[in-house]
Amino acid sequence: MSKIKDGTVIDHIPSGKAVKVLNILKISENTSVSIGIRVPSNMMGFKDVIKIENKFLEKIELDKISLIAPSATISIIKDYDITEKFKVDLPESVIGIVRCTNQNCITNAGEPVSPEFKVISANPLALKCIYCKREMSESDVINSL
Amino acid sequence: MSKIKDGTVIDHIPSGKAVKVLNILKISENTSVSIGIRVPSNMMGFKDVIKIENKFLEKIELDKISLIAPSATISIIKDYDITEKFKVDLPESVIGIVRCTNQNCITNAGEPVSPEFKVISANPLALKCIYCKREMSESDVINSL
Repeated sequence: MSKIKDGTVIDHIPSGKAVKVLNILKISENTSVSIGIRVPSNMMGFKDVIKIENKFLEKIELDKISLIAPSATISIIKDYDITEKFKVDLPESVIGIVRCTNQNCITNAGEPVSPEFKVISANPLALKCIYCKREMSESDVINSL
Repeated sequence: MSKIKDGTVIDHIPSGKAVKVLNILKISENTSVSIGIRVPSNMMGFKDVIKIENKFLEKIELDKISLIAPSATISIIKDYDITEKFKVDLPESVIGIVRCTNQNCITNAGEPVSPEFKVISANPLALKCIYCKREMSESDVINSL
């Protein structure tokens, strides 16, 4: 994969998850992206990598990535140099990002109540709604992002 | 994007269509893929490119690509050399690949009748069912592949 001048590299994505990560990012039509799927990795065996030119991720995008790819590392690139590098952070509580799959949950009733989940497992991902106690699997979460 | 030793390069994909093309291909979990989105191109301004290691496309995959990306060129790579290069070929009739969106069409009635469409426009793509005359837009086609 070629270097980028300015933008963001999302590295150490679990192999096979790159397209899922790409789908939850807000990427304009004018953005150049390169994606490596099943790239050999010393640490992970195989990994996926996404390089996005001239884009810097918002907090909500980082939070969404942490749900799908908790191992992901983010590098901020400016003028070909890495100016910042950090791991995404899977929080203990997920607030306002994921919709509850239970249609009868108070968070789906048009009330001013933000959906909120406890992370009960990171790998495989499992969340539990603090209101209706519905448990959500990784695929439920991906469909609700 | 790096070179591949053996496999297939799908080049000159209209910019923004790479993920759609990827989704209609049968790619096993063990396959390495690299994708360039919005790569500068002399011919097209910008284009998408997909490189798939150790995979050679079946006829039905080429036919599906021709519907989404009629400008695409296919290169077969063996031991780092291009051994074959050709454009995909949007046929006049599309037989057995796309399902008709009309639920009352004879091709959706469990009868031994293959769906068949005439290509009435290539860009934007439009197909017409030869049985029920339903016209299908590009997004109808992508959802029915």
